[in-house]
Amino acid sequence: MSAKPVNKVVLAYSGGLDTSIILKWLQTTYGCEVVTFTADLGQGEELEPARQKALLLGIKPENIFIEDVREEFVRDYVFPMFRANAQYEGLYLLGTSIARPLIAKKQIEIAERTGADAVSHGSTGKGNDQVRYEVAYYALKPDVTIIAPWREWDLRSREALIKFAEDHQIPIAKDKRGEAPFSVDANLLHCSSEGKVLEDPAVEVPDYVYSRTVDPEQAPDTPTVVSIDFEKGDPVAVDGVRMSPATLLAKLNELGRINGIGRLDLVENRYVGMKSRGMYETPGGTILLLAHRGIESITLDRGAAHLKDELMPKYAELIYNGFWFSPEREMLQVLIDKSQEFVTGSVRLKLFKGGVHIVGRESPYSLYSQDLVTFEEGAVAYDHRDAAGFIKLNALRLRTLAQRKRNLGI
Amino acid sequence: MSAKPVNKVVLAYSGGLDTSIILKWLQTTYGCEVVTFTADLGQGEELEPARQKALLLGIKPENIFIEDVREEFVRDYVFPMFRANAQYEGLYLLGTSIARPLIAKKQIEIAERTGADAVSHGSTGKGNDQVRYEVAYYALKPDVTIIAPWREWDLRSREALIKFAEDHQIPIAKDKRGEAPFSVDANLLHCSSEGKVLEDPAVEVPDYVYSRTVDPEQAPDTPTVVSIDFEKGDPVAVDGVRMSPATLLAKLNELGRINGIGRLDLVENRYVGMKSRGMYETPGGTILLLAHRGIESITLDRGAAHLKDELMPKYAELIYNGFWFSPEREMLQVLIDKSQEFVTGSVRLKLFKGGVHIVGRESPYSLYSQDLVTFEEGAVAYDHRDAAGFIKLNALRLRTLAQRKRNLGI
Amino acid sequence: MSAKPVNKVVLAYSGGLDTSIILKWLQTTYGCEVVTFTADLGQGEELEPARQKALLLGIKPENIFIEDVREEFVRDYVFPMFRANAQYEGLYLLGTSIARPLIAKKQIEIAERTGADAVSHGSTGKGNDQVRYEVAYYALKPDVTIIAPWREWDLRSREALIKFAEDHQIPIAKDKRGEAPFSVDANLLHCSSEGKVLEDPAVEVPDYVYSRTVDPEQAPDTPTVVSIDFEKGDPVAVDGVRMSPATLLAKLNELGRINGIGRLDLVENRYVGMKSRGMYETPGGTILLLAHRGIESITLDRGAAHLKDELMPKYAELIYNGFWFSPEREMLQVLIDKSQEFVTGSVRLKLFKGGVHIVGRESPYSLYSQDLVTFEEGAVAYDHRDAAGFIKLNALRLRTLAQRKRNLGI
Amino acid sequence: MSAKPVNKVVLAYSGGLDTSIILKWLQTTYGCEVVTFTADLGQGEELEPARQKALLLGIKPENIFIEDVREEFVRDYVFPMFRANAQYEGLYLLGTSIARPLIAKKQIEIAERTGADAVSHGSTGKGNDQVRYEVAYYALKPDVTIIAPWREWDLRSREALIKFAEDHQIPIAKDKRGEAPFSVDANLLHCSSEGKVLEDPAVEVPDYVYSRTVDPEQAPDTPTVVSIDFEKGDPVAVDGVRMSPATLLAKLNELGRINGIGRLDLVENRYVGMKSRGMYETPGGTILLLAHRGIESITLDRGAAHLKDELMPKYAELIYNGFWFSPEREMLQVLIDKSQEFVTGSVRLKLFKGGVHIVGRESPYSLYSQDLVTFEEGAVAYDHRDAAGFIKLNALRLRTLAQRKRNLGI
Repeated sequence: MSAKPVNKVVLAYSGGLDTSIILKWLQTTYGCEVVTFTADLGQGEELEPARQKALLLGIKPENIFIEDVREEFVRDYVFPMFRANAQYEGLYLLGTSIARPLIAKKQIEIAERTGADAVSHGSTGKGNDQVRYEVAYYALKPDVTIIAPWREWDLRSREALIKFAEDHQIPIAKDKRGEAPFSVDANLLHCSSEGKVLEDPAVEVPDYVYSRTVDPEQAPDTPTVVSIDFEKGDPVAVDGVRMSPATLLAKLNELGRINGIGRLDLVENRYVGMKSRGMYETPGGTILLLAHRGIESITLDRGAAHLKDELMPKYAELIYNGFWFSPEREMLQVLIDKSQEFVTGSVRLKLFKGGVHIVGRESPYSLYSQDLVTFEEGAVAYDHRDAAGFIKLNALRLRTLAQRKRNLGI
Repeated sequence: MSAKPVNKVVLAYSGGLDTSIILKWLQTTYGCEVVTFTADLGQGEELEPARQKALLLGIKPENIFIEDVREEFVRDYVFPMFRANAQYEGLYLLGTSIARPLIAKKQIEIAERTGADAVSHGSTGKGNDQVRYEVAYYALKPDVTIIAPWREWDLRSREALIKFAEDHQIPIAKDKRGEAPFSVDANLLHCSSEGKVLEDPAVEVPDYVYSRTVDPEQAPDTPTVVSIDFEKGDPVAVDGVRMSPATLLAKLNELGRINGIGRLDLVENRYVGMKSRGMYETPGGTILLLAHRGIESITLDRGAAHLKDELMPKYAELIYNGFWFSPEREMLQVLIDKSQEFVTGSVRLKLFKGGVHIVGRESPYSLYSQDLVTFEEGAVAYDHRDAAGFIKLNALRLRTLAQRKRNLGI
Repeated sequence: MSAKPVNKVVLAYSGGLDTSIILKWLQTTYGCEVVTFTADLGQGEELEPARQKALLLGIKPENIFIEDVREEFVRDYVFPMFRANAQYEGLYLLGTSIARPLIAKKQIEIAERTGADAVSHGSTGKGNDQVRYEVAYYALKPDVTIIAPWREWDLRSREALIKFAEDHQIPIAKDKRGEAPFSVDANLLHCSSEGKVLEDPAVEVPDYVYSRTVDPEQAPDTPTVVSIDFEKGDPVAVDGVRMSPATLLAKLNELGRINGIGRLDLVENRYVGMKSRGMYETPGGTILLLAHRGIESITLDRGAAHLKDELMPKYAELIYNGFWFSPEREMLQVLIDKSQEFVTGSVRLKLFKGGVHIVGRESPYSLYSQDLVTFEEGAVAYDHRDAAGFIKLNALRLRTLAQRKRNLGI
Repeated sequence: MSAKPVNKVVLAYSGGLDTSIILKWLQTTYGCEVVTFTADLGQGEELEPARQKALLLGIKPENIFIEDVREEFVRDYVFPMFRANAQYEGLYLLGTSIARPLIAKKQIEIAERTGADAVSHGSTGKGNDQVRYEVAYYALKPDVTIIAPWREWDLRSREALIKFAEDHQIPIAKDKRGEAPFSVDANLLHCSSEGKVLEDPAVEVPDYVYSRTVDPEQAPDTPTVVSIDFEKGDPVAVDGVRMSPATLLAKLNELGRINGIGRLDLVENRYVGMKSRGMYETPGGTILLLAHRGIESITLDRGAAHLKDELMPKYAELIYNGFWFSPEREMLQVLIDKSQEFVTGSVRLKLFKGGVHIVGRESPYSLYSQDLVTFEEGAVAYDHRDAAGFIKLNALRLRTLAQRKRNLGI
């Protein structure tokens, strides 16, 4: 339990059983006023039931905050991250990681508005999310008190939780009495599953775990061809139809879903020091990543592209570890954003039974364009005789090394 | 033409029309003895016809060198590169790049053995391969004379080439009279195509360009499940059957081929400064890359894995640019190899209509293993209360920054 | 000689013998109009004699451009570079490298204004400066024709040059008849010397080579204490007196000069592939570098500082190699500049017989400040018990590795 | 207090008052057997008094371990680190950081030998050293119990400590009754001071804090010239006299001391999240760093040198943070060591009133050597015409970018 008395706490509240238990536990343990924040990040759940549940649990109407943050999420978090082609450990599209800073920011804003001195979340003590939430809280409100119930309470078993719920008149859906066969996190970018039935990394993920994508084997036998338009590094239209960020991502999710795209079975390294196995479904994001690389391939200079590639692992690691609100992430972001000025144009892709394939790309700013690089007199020309000098000076130091070896007889 | 007189030149000779023209051009222009080197890198062509052709063109039998280097290629070049998970510009598996240093090395060895003072290759003046060959030549024999006919001669058109061939009694296959609709490079790792019909990056690659893979739409309707065993970072067995490196890669190629795996339509940045569009087929390599990441995911420590990921783009760039025989590539290689000591175990994958999916992985050296990390008393334990301190100290500097902002009222 | 006819060329003209010979050679060889550009970069030479000399050599008055660019040089090139703490190969402060892009930019601007189609410079064919000039020319005017006389003409010896000068009535100062014992480049940031008497890296630099600094052994026996004020990463005042960028750097140069500060005897790796030995004097810059690190040490967050340190070698290499006008340098610059927002405050230093030593630093934005980090209740607090959790989670992966070794008995 | 009962603990014991109090506190609080380990790292203190004190405090003779580890320290820790030219935050030579892993390793070895289940150290809860010790302990013995008295006990004031000492008959030297004006860590590489009188970073370090170096103003008026011979990256002789590693470093310390070399007043970022101000004296190390860069400058290839420079900040950070025994440090070490094969030769330096200046360097393996790079026919030659092609292809992408801007009219 936190050393300091707490007057008012802003809880990230889903309306589900676990965060309802936390709500009640905060009231009873800390004797403090609870403010709930429920966000629509595209997780696919209604928000109004959360309001009803909060009221039922004794939260004052003015202390219930519900917000649809889908556009903000995609525009200010997901798209900036995709400008970097970010993949953690080469594969993971960071769907969970990127949502946490936004939720934390909203909680802190509500804390400032309501005069709350504390915030709380429902993440466990072994995972990355506790770090992501709390690092963000601290970065935005250095004097905040953080309550992490899963690290504090003694409700160690499912039974203890259920008993606590019963004791406090918290309604329990029938299917929540037992332990879930795996745990889920979802938002507009992705759905992740981990734990229990997924714990043995040698065992295939069971079919019933997937919720966002059709099994590739069940996907249509003819490919979907889709075109995505980009402006300054962000997607703005699908098949020629301009859409808001969240609408666009939802559209790509739907295209990905039916074609079985974006499943990832991964063993990853958590920031807290252990390995974990997760299953991710990121249908739209998987399409978007390749499309973005495609439009960059004709509009981005080599120097810019390679610098981005070299810095990407660090950028992805920062987001994974929870350092979205850090100076180094912000520094990398301005570097990345600077590169995207001309990343504008259109990419055509084929979606087919789990695969995404680029089939064409074009841009008014193409650096490939034959109008631009005619290699004729009068414009930028390429003289193949230049290659000889280029090679000789690039090889000069290696020749010197080789000559040293010769001199030494080795 | 090279400033120095040349006595004897070792030519990388395929037996095809173009390198036959070069052979004759070297004889007539430089008046020098020509030594031919023809390698079996798994490109899928018979070597004996090259010998016959060389004899026909007046090469002395003792000056004809033919070698099957497939095992050496895969063992000493391909596998070390895959230990790094190398991908150039995020996607390209470097199939052409990795073969050039080996050919160059063989040519230089033959030059040393036969007392040749020069080497020659058939790469054009606009591409990367000239750089890869010549940088390697210089790095291995600093005083070598390099003859790059495509940069020197005035055979500027197909007609001029054909006329030269006719004038010098070089046999011309019927289908070689006209210009090819695209150019091809092939070896055991991959087949690449570029030029002509592929030049417009907005236009889809025509079907007839593919030679190594079945169209995913035509691939079998049921997945192939395959297991790959690794030892110290290298694959050693497929479905439990131990194989030599080249045999193993050929086996993966076959599995990839039938399942339509490993097609890549890419616009890339050449080292010589321009963008080019290529189509790559790397069936076995595509499977291998994911499998290697899979076995690393349970056997490699996070610190090692992230360091590898951060250095990979540079390592890939060095290979792409032709710096295999450079101190910095060798330094990176020892770093990478050092990490692979326990990268041993087995990965199971599903191959399906163009897609590769990991479905399981296990290792006697797993860092994930529940025997190892029981998180019980007596072994390495995880106490979730530790997370609070971990987070607080990691956030301390960010809280300090936030406090500064508060003090400044911003 | 350039393949294209040239109508008008803008020459980087110092007024000295060598560039006067180039001027005449351009007129006679290319038959083109010559426009001269002479810049005051703080090299310590009068500019009017250059005008007189140009007139004497037949340049039309309207084709003579003379400009004092010292403020622009320091403000837009030197200071941005020092924000990065840039040192090439760990030691060199890039005094020559950073001046070239500015000169090139001015030449191209004059070319655009005067309708010139070509530019020319007086750098030799073995050095870095030809690269720096020409890469900048091309980056700013892609269709420009570049004339590099030292790579083109056959004036291979001092005698040939002198004869050419005599033949064309170019006045020759007496001390310019023989070859100089070393060559010099100078601007407000530094003075470099190389060649001839400096060529053997085993032999100490002779005393007479130094021109910008007193011998440390002859410097005053009492230290100079100086304070430098910074705003957003740039120095703005010395000993409390606000100064323009160039004035400030000149002031630091003077303080450095009398205290024998900023001598560097270096063997460096040129971009063109060879090693060279140079002697650099950068009195003010040497003071500035340490001072900047000093003010950063209390105002910059660790994450920001370490990211900067990791990227510095690449940034310095880009400038050394001549890629100031490249997307990747510009991307790194916005990253660096982003970090400097609060790099404001004052540093006190002691200058003594060749050494610079920080003796104090303070800032209104200090992250060290005890007001900020009181570590008391109510503000950002440090609880030493947090360290246990911090350490345990950081060590967790290493314990797992150790446990694996134990299990294997190794 | 640790959750587990402890039977036997190996304490890093200096023989001073603080670790004597810890010793007694361990006995009384944990009721366990205490084993002491006292190392001679070159800190300049006698070891026998530590033995006497331990005996006096009731430690059994067979439980007292005293070892002179100076040679091991310099050979296996200091020199490998200097091969990397490691400097934390651009300036700090890591003198404290590099000693901790060795002490930890020795403690763990003794724990294994004596059957101890715990280790303990005397570092406080706010510093880096606790992390360095404990991360190393865990990395070497994953099941070890760590006791960190400063984080556990309630001896919060000097008075409480003194009272505890008196209560337990621990002898107290007169000058230890009050609090020290600053705290000190020393070994053969350096001496560091921090705390109390040094806490305000705006205030100059008082004279009496320095113990290893003469004030530069008091140093001799004539320079000391010294030559250092290197073999494979490590120094082996001073002024032609071969010496063991520790002897050599001691010799350089003496030369540095009399010439006032190696003082550093620094504000640094601790791993635990706060800034601290320290004063370091590293006389021999400061000489060694520059000498090593000097010998590398003529023997190391550019590619190798730049790769080292780019990785150095990360390598230094790992050591600073306490990750010597991590896979990533070991991976970087093999990379660095690989580069040092020919880093052999001699460097001459001038030491003068706080400054170190290279005046010459030579090597049988010099890549600068004029024998090697004659630039004449027959050897590796440089043709200045090659520079044109080199520049043009390097600039090609920038010209393309510029052409795009032109096309867009920007």
